[in-house]
Amino acid sequence: MKKSSSYAAIPMRMVGPVNIVGPVLQEELFVPLATFETPLWPSTTRGAMVSKSAGGIKVVVLEDKMTRSVVAQGPDAEYVANVAAALKGYKEELAAVVRTTSRFACLEDWHIQIVGNLIYIRFEMTTGDAAGHNMTTKAADVLLEWILKHFQKLQYVSISSNFCTDKKASVVNGILGRGKYVVAEITVPREVCMRLLKTTPENIVNLNIKKNLIGTLLAGGIRSANAHFANMLLGFYLATGQDAANIIEGSQGIVHAELREQALYFSVTLPNVIVGTVGNGKHLPFVKENLAALGCLAQRKPGQNAKRLAAIVGAVVLCGELSLLAAQTNPGELMQSHLRLERMELERAE
Amino acid sequence: MKKSSSYAAIPMRMVGPVNIVGPVLQEELFVPLATFETPLWPSTTRGAMVSKSAGGIKVVVLEDKMTRSVVAQGPDAEYVANVAAALKGYKEELAAVVRTTSRFACLEDWHIQIVGNLIYIRFEMTTGDAAGHNMTTKAADVLLEWILKHFQKLQYVSISSNFCTDKKASVVNGILGRGKYVVAEITVPREVCMRLLKTTPENIVNLNIKKNLIGTLLAGGIRSANAHFANMLLGFYLATGQDAANIIEGSQGIVHAELREQALYFSVTLPNVIVGTVGNGKHLPFVKENLAALGCLAQRKPGQNAKRLAAIVGAVVLCGELSLLAAQTNPGELMQSHLRLERMELERAE
Amino acid sequence: MKKSSSYAAIPMRMVGPVNIVGPVLQEELFVPLATFETPLWPSTTRGAMVSKSAGGIKVVVLEDKMTRSVVAQGPDAEYVANVAAALKGYKEELAAVVRTTSRFACLEDWHIQIVGNLIYIRFEMTTGDAAGHNMTTKAADVLLEWILKHFQKLQYVSISSNFCTDKKASVVNGILGRGKYVVAEITVPREVCMRLLKTTPENIVNLNIKKNLIGTLLAGGIRSANAHFANMLLGFYLATGQDAANIIEGSQGIVHAELREQALYFSVTLPNVIVGTVGNGKHLPFVKENLAALGCLAQRKPGQNAKRLAAIVGAVVLCGELSLLAAQTNPGELMQSHLRLERMELERAE
Amino acid sequence: MKKSSSYAAIPMRMVGPVNIVGPVLQEELFVPLATFETPLWPSTTRGAMVSKSAGGIKVVVLEDKMTRSVVAQGPDAEYVANVAAALKGYKEELAAVVRTTSRFACLEDWHIQIVGNLIYIRFEMTTGDAAGHNMTTKAADVLLEWILKHFQKLQYVSISSNFCTDKKASVVNGILGRGKYVVAEITVPREVCMRLLKTTPENIVNLNIKKNLIGTLLAGGIRSANAHFANMLLGFYLATGQDAANIIEGSQGIVHAELREQALYFSVTLPNVIVGTVGNGKHLPFVKENLAALGCLAQRKPGQNAKRLAAIVGAVVLCGELSLLAAQTNPGELMQSHLRLERMELERAE
Repeated sequence: MKKSSSYAAIPMRMVGPVNIVGPVLQEELFVPLATFETPLWPSTTRGAMVSKSAGGIKVVVLEDKMTRSVVAQGPDAEYVANVAAALKGYKEELAAVVRTTSRFACLEDWHIQIVGNLIYIRFEMTTGDAAGHNMTTKAADVLLEWILKHFQKLQYVSISSNFCTDKKASVVNGILGRGKYVVAEITVPREVCMRLLKTTPENIVNLNIKKNLIGTLLAGGIRSANAHFANMLLGFYLATGQDAANIIEGSQGIVHAELREQALYFSVTLPNVIVGTVGNGKHLPFVKENLAALGCLAQRKPGQNAKRLAAIVGAVVLCGELSLLAAQTNPGELMQSHLRLERMELERAE
Repeated sequence: MKKSSSYAAIPMRMVGPVNIVGPVLQEELFVPLATFETPLWPSTTRGAMVSKSAGGIKVVVLEDKMTRSVVAQGPDAEYVANVAAALKGYKEELAAVVRTTSRFACLEDWHIQIVGNLIYIRFEMTTGDAAGHNMTTKAADVLLEWILKHFQKLQYVSISSNFCTDKKASVVNGILGRGKYVVAEITVPREVCMRLLKTTPENIVNLNIKKNLIGTLLAGGIRSANAHFANMLLGFYLATGQDAANIIEGSQGIVHAELREQALYFSVTLPNVIVGTVGNGKHLPFVKENLAALGCLAQRKPGQNAKRLAAIVGAVVLCGELSLLAAQTNPGELMQSHLRLERMELERAE
Repeated sequence: MKKSSSYAAIPMRMVGPVNIVGPVLQEELFVPLATFETPLWPSTTRGAMVSKSAGGIKVVVLEDKMTRSVVAQGPDAEYVANVAAALKGYKEELAAVVRTTSRFACLEDWHIQIVGNLIYIRFEMTTGDAAGHNMTTKAADVLLEWILKHFQKLQYVSISSNFCTDKKASVVNGILGRGKYVVAEITVPREVCMRLLKTTPENIVNLNIKKNLIGTLLAGGIRSANAHFANMLLGFYLATGQDAANIIEGSQGIVHAELREQALYFSVTLPNVIVGTVGNGKHLPFVKENLAALGCLAQRKPGQNAKRLAAIVGAVVLCGELSLLAAQTNPGELMQSHLRLERMELERAE
Repeated sequence: MKKSSSYAAIPMRMVGPVNIVGPVLQEELFVPLATFETPLWPSTTRGAMVSKSAGGIKVVVLEDKMTRSVVAQGPDAEYVANVAAALKGYKEELAAVVRTTSRFACLEDWHIQIVGNLIYIRFEMTTGDAAGHNMTTKAADVLLEWILKHFQKLQYVSISSNFCTDKKASVVNGILGRGKYVVAEITVPREVCMRLLKTTPENIVNLNIKKNLIGTLLAGGIRSANAHFANMLLGFYLATGQDAANIIEGSQGIVHAELREQALYFSVTLPNVIVGTVGNGKHLPFVKENLAALGCLAQRKPGQNAKRLAAIVGAVVLCGELSLLAAQTNPGELMQSHLRLERMELERAE
């Protein structure tokens, strides 16, 4: 390998303050987003202004797990089905095996799929404050070794079988879970909607149905009823040292909006937020600084810092999504503001 | 917005040299990858070593377009169906409308979907050396204005309707195209396979079937028969100033491998590589430096620099994919090498 | 093969009359549905009553084609890409080849996908009044033979490659078309909605969003935003001699409903209705009788009888869908009416 | 409703004998298929001949459940998340509620998805020898009533929410299960393959990869790696009184084939076979006769007759799939045999 510049210096800025409420945290926070697409900053900031005027974004984190699936093969379907059945009796042993590999990994459950003589086993674990890719791979390695030893007609096929599934567009993560399941909600008074977002609650509800729901269905989209979750996730993941390729599953989330009396109820549901506060990338100075600024390097019980981080990104995703949808309800606005903002950035850059 | 560190400094290194052949370029190149997941570098470099020993990776770029879809509504399905039919007669006018918006945008075709009284129009354009997000949005803006003026019972719904679709997991981009359609192939002699990849051609073919093809199907994956295209795409996109959220469609590609006599035929097909050499991010010094080092800032006909960039990333994706699959054929290897490499990186970092 | 009963006698009844308007036909018709699930009859009939009270169901048929895809392989991607490019110059020759195979088959277009050294070619044809499975297979057979002869390094892989795709859950048929693209719509006055459907327009709109749109997305559903299109399609296909396995693509359709002033706008969009009035099954006496009763055996230009049949089934699907959704807006109604209707059927059967 | 012919008389014939082995049954059986597509009979019979010459098709039935999902809404995500958590403590109560609705329904588990303030609950039950659509709907009705009473801020949205999902193309049924999970396998000696199927094991393995696996991925297919499971399922479901619209989930299955020394290992995996021996349609004389001939009306423990029926259809699907794939490996064979068989049928019919 040849050295060149040793860092890609991605432009980064704090947006906010975002007003977050709910069981995980109640604070106003500035949030870092690193991106080449600089109009993302003012757009997300507009959403943050709404969060302030509308009493805050309520965020809950419902589930938390990391997964890895292995695949092995037996002589026939009956044999691998018997393995699947027998494993149910070894819950304790398998959990103990996992504990030997890490202080934090904890085996919670597994799901099995059988195809002919192939058996796919998707292990689910909690992994403390780590996103958990490596922790679960390490654990799966030892689990698979244990299983191959106990069922001697099974043969190794792969430590990773795509039924996990990591960084690929699929449905399994949405249904069985992977990462943190985050829901962020806000109720925006009509007056705030019109003043800050330049549109009506009805227009946003209508757009969400015709674009995010029906438009996605037409595209053959899977569990991706949103405009651009990916942009906020990417900016936040890069700024906080996450493996940003996980925006692929992260982007598969749903906007649900409806009228509540005269106000706008607006929610983003992200079943697959994969973030951690320890692990690869977290030792970099700018990452440490950002995690500290977000209050995610505090002394807390294992998993609580990462949970807080997930809640924050949920709120930021809501800010950016709401602002873009609002812009798209008005003909011409998206392009005009985009061009204006880019011009501003360029001028500032010069 | 509050300032903090103004850059996220993502670790970056040149991997290679990658040996590329075929109609787009014939060169050995070092390629920059920016990532927090540093084992990606030696792993991709191993693939690059194979490219050298096996006579090069042959890359072709088959198609090139950027898309944007709008949505409007009429009184009923018959009306919007008539609009769809009438538009076929305005090909020249619409192309002229697009030309008013940019020197480079060129309308190639469009596809329409009708749902009740809603009409979704997905415009396809070439956009020179730009990835083309903004260029197509700007053009779509004017196209939609033109259409609404000519069909007076149509009403604006949205400038972007998710049938485009940008940065979301869907099937439409694979079938109708978005970005550059890249195929990279190599034939690896058995001896090279065993020496550099520590496995047999048979093992890789077998793993690809059971993991990338069947495993992905089980996961409810869509057009994503690969192990980790996303990792190489992300590293390359960040290093070259691309909108890295487009790894979402980029990751939807297919590995096809088979035995050819005793050798391994191995290919990666990426129908949705979205890259440019001009536009947002391209003015940053490290990006300029990288694009120049890759030979993608030369005086060429519009589109040729971006095409070259797409061919290069196709080859890099092949390197990383081949190396990881090889590792996964051997029990324990993935984790052991991963841990070893991370340790090396940490030591180097200290 | 051993003989037993030589017919499966599926219970069949005429439902209606369904009031149909629009460019294809303007009539009131009784429509046959064959099913073991007898509550389908009164439920669909309730929808038909709405069609009468609300001024008719307006049906349009937007497109019409049948498809078959072949797959071949070449030495590498460049070769098959050159084949793909060269074929564009042989449009006339290929169309002539198709004409040698049938009086009715007419080649309209094709779409190509390349994966490594594999080339998948999806031919689109019109097939007169036949659904066209066999006609397109026969034509594809000769087309493939022609292609293999002209491109000598291509090798046969399969006459059918699943990119067609026939009778399998996929997205390609929705996006590129297969069968007839049917949209049926109705505007139901609030009073009719409340009297006949026992619910409000708001409730149906709301249910459609939360069940058909969001619920389907959660299920990892693809282009299937409906409650039970499959039931009406099956009953109708069996009664009219269609290949009923095509309910698989047929079921992938979308309900779009919204308030129009105080009334309910309700539409069903079925992009893949695969029906014919000639071909397998059409010589059976009960099929002939039903097709005649529906006015689909008249002297018309080729394709017009099948188009009429497609329009009719679109209207029937609307009737059944609207009635079931209405029932589901009311707690307990679905089950109670289901049980009551089954009891009636059983009593009648005894 | 108007009466016309009261039955759709679908042509039906016994194919076989199919040789079945494995834990569910060891017998040679003739199996009824009702279809308009009469070439299905000799084609499936050819597969049956292979079953005889190759020592039988081994069938296992791995799981068995029916599902229904309801949807309700609360004030916000936190509230519905608390409902989801609280329900875990009511497993006994909910199971008791289900028992009040049927002698056979037994609540096994449930899965929950939350979207904003919406909660989707997918109940899984065993339902004895019934396919269980109505039994689970009836149980879900009472379960939802119970839940709404215990969590007073929840409101009814729908008794059926498409997360079930019934008769629609989706991924959820494959991952979480719905119906019976059937795997059928055979090992065909090379000599038998060449004599009866006119092809080699290598050709079938190769075709399966390029058509069923890669071709399906290209089509945006979901969990549907097969050529025509739907045809055999439809014929069998119609002949045995099943709700044949369930071929939609039934068709989502996977062929896995590989070489074992010189022989062909060939398997079909069908995770969603929805069949019963009691319920709608089962009182019809031809259905009774067929179920009796298949040995599925015997005195057995609840669920065992339906399990036997599922095993039989798994074997029949294998017969038809193997025969068609074999035909498609040879250029021209599919069409020629199809035409010959149709001609034979027509002559016989006259």
